[in-house]
Amino acid sequence: MAERSLIFAAREYRDRAARLQAGMDAQRLDALLLTAPTDIFYTTGFLTRFWESPARPWFVVMPQAGDPVAVIPSIGAALMGRTWLRDIRTWDAPDPRDDGIGLLADTLAGAVPAGGRIGLPMGAETHLRMPLADFETLRARLAPRPFVDATACIQRVREVKSAAEIARIRETCAIAGRAFARVPEFAAEGRPLEKVFREFQIAALAEGADWVSYVAGGAGPDGYGDVISPAGPQPLRRGDVLMLDTGAVKDGYFCDFDRNFAIGPASDAARRAHHALWHATEETLAALRPGLRACDVHGLLCAGLQARGATPAGGRLGHGLGLSLTEWPSFTPHDDTPLRAGMVLTLEPGCITREGRIMVHEENIVLHEDGAELLSPRAPAELPEIAG
Amino acid sequence: MAERSLIFAAREYRDRAARLQAGMDAQRLDALLLTAPTDIFYTTGFLTRFWESPARPWFVVMPQAGDPVAVIPSIGAALMGRTWLRDIRTWDAPDPRDDGIGLLADTLAGAVPAGGRIGLPMGAETHLRMPLADFETLRARLAPRPFVDATACIQRVREVKSAAEIARIRETCAIAGRAFARVPEFAAEGRPLEKVFREFQIAALAEGADWVSYVAGGAGPDGYGDVISPAGPQPLRRGDVLMLDTGAVKDGYFCDFDRNFAIGPASDAARRAHHALWHATEETLAALRPGLRACDVHGLLCAGLQARGATPAGGRLGHGLGLSLTEWPSFTPHDDTPLRAGMVLTLEPGCITREGRIMVHEENIVLHEDGAELLSPRAPAELPEIAG
Repeated sequence: MAERSLIFAAREYRDRAARLQAGMDAQRLDALLLTAPTDIFYTTGFLTRFWESPARPWFVVMPQAGDPVAVIPSIGAALMGRTWLRDIRTWDAPDPRDDGIGLLADTLAGAVPAGGRIGLPMGAETHLRMPLADFETLRARLAPRPFVDATACIQRVREVKSAAEIARIRETCAIAGRAFARVPEFAAEGRPLEKVFREFQIAALAEGADWVSYVAGGAGPDGYGDVISPAGPQPLRRGDVLMLDTGAVKDGYFCDFDRNFAIGPASDAARRAHHALWHATEETLAALRPGLRACDVHGLLCAGLQARGATPAGGRLGHGLGLSLTEWPSFTPHDDTPLRAGMVLTLEPGCITREGRIMVHEENIVLHEDGAELLSPRAPAELPEIAG
Repeated sequence: MAERSLIFAAREYRDRAARLQAGMDAQRLDALLLTAPTDIFYTTGFLTRFWESPARPWFVVMPQAGDPVAVIPSIGAALMGRTWLRDIRTWDAPDPRDDGIGLLADTLAGAVPAGGRIGLPMGAETHLRMPLADFETLRARLAPRPFVDATACIQRVREVKSAAEIARIRETCAIAGRAFARVPEFAAEGRPLEKVFREFQIAALAEGADWVSYVAGGAGPDGYGDVISPAGPQPLRRGDVLMLDTGAVKDGYFCDFDRNFAIGPASDAARRAHHALWHATEETLAALRPGLRACDVHGLLCAGLQARGATPAGGRLGHGLGLSLTEWPSFTPHDDTPLRAGMVLTLEPGCITREGRIMVHEENIVLHEDGAELLSPRAPAELPEIAG
């Protein structure tokens, strides 16, 4: 399984480490402590669904120079041993007496002089994936070394995808695209929504997804009430707009896009909304360039909707994508993150179709110096109809 | 979709709140701050796969008296509005200026007098699911109120499952049991392991799982090297032992058990190991009683293996189960958590079959006053063989 647990050749990871260490140097960090599944996968290639178990913490220490060190439960030693890392330190977790904190403190103390600084992601979209009480113990053990926020350090590196990463996301998008093409095989009037969700996941797996981490959606006349609910037993009805949104995963890389379908002939309101969403996306695709800010993309999408008489929905209208279903930046009025070539992004305009109903539309792209390239197979310009 | 987002009748949640508040009273907590998906689902019934997106924090504040308050991104307002909660406070997330911290601080300040205490899970198996920097801001805003560790407060309540919860877990186990029964339909000599993993997930969905959060396993002669790796393209070979382990989900409740299969005739070593694992489990099933400690169960399983000449594998040999793939306690030599009636647990003995190879065996049970009741359909006593 070596070729799969690594995902990429070792030079990909060495390049990532070098880019991270350049950022650490600029911020005068002697080590970076990583605890999140995405950050650990990014730096090591360690890919497992075992993160689903909250019982054990996992740590990667990136020193200012040299290769990263894994400080992990022994249950992960075999899998980590198939990555490019050579310094793998383990303990038998879970251990209520000391769940890796002594080993981690020793590792960090070895990498960071007493006058040095330890970086830790503490900002937006980050979580500390270890017990807070254990972190307090660690901090005390390592005093006077300060832990400083290293969110930007890791985000500025991770947000620019390599060619190898873009190829993976393109493949995941293609898998989901084939699954969406099969929706008319199993979505029809009278079919319970929860059954449609199951069949869609089955289609994504059959088309090559390793697993399906996210499916959401909704169905209703002229749109749906929200976009994060699980499905219930209610049957699809003639006149509904069905939306399915998925984050399928292949080799650890996500897609995140949705598709809309009319059950029976589409209503005028649904057709108009789809038209506005599609064309607002089309215009934004043409306008995207490095140097625009995230808030500018929000403005472009809103303007495209409003030019067609549609009312933009609240919330963000797209975001980053890659190692998790959503990454920074967020296309909101308040996010001024500059777009950079190599970013993989979703465009996700939504509009209000009537009181309490919305429609959303989503595509995945990679940004190049000369503009956007679609990674998801483009949705049809007209809302597709499934015979009711 | 109201009946699905609630999962249970409101009285189930009221009972949970009352039990939590009794524990808070004993610990002199004026409020409990919850950020984890499991704790929020437990107290509200808010079930979504949207946790897959790390972009937004979500908060539930349990006051010392009265109903819990949700402080959540507005994207979740519709779904939370279908739960039993009536006090739902929202902000437009993500917002880099203030991502809910002001609203949360006001909510907590309203529930906790200046001399009061705020409980927060900080111990083993917990994570703070919000940016650490935002937590520091929150702590400063609420000073001098201390945040104190409330891990035991929530774990002592959650670990005793209600009859309604046990029924859900039993159903999920039955779904996975039917999927395991279909493994001989798609696992065979020459079939790549990654294809078997996909087909198994498809089978679990077809049998009624809402989604499949976890599949792992391995295959090799006389056993496998580890149990958390994703599958690779290597084909099953005659003489392999195939193990599949799953955490399928139905209505938010997990199963977590595995099954072994011999591809072609089983080797003597594999048969002996399966015999030892099965009988060690059988003896432990008969011996389980409330009042035993988690470490006693570890001892029982080890003794059962050793009595049959098998060498126990390291690590834990079982754990709690329910709202996540794994819950406390852990069947290790160091966990002295007492078992209580109503706990749902996995028995997961593993043994070393030869250098670098193990076999593991897992069942799910609920503990009653008079002993264990199986929730998973019992594995066959003899290692099943799939024609090679």
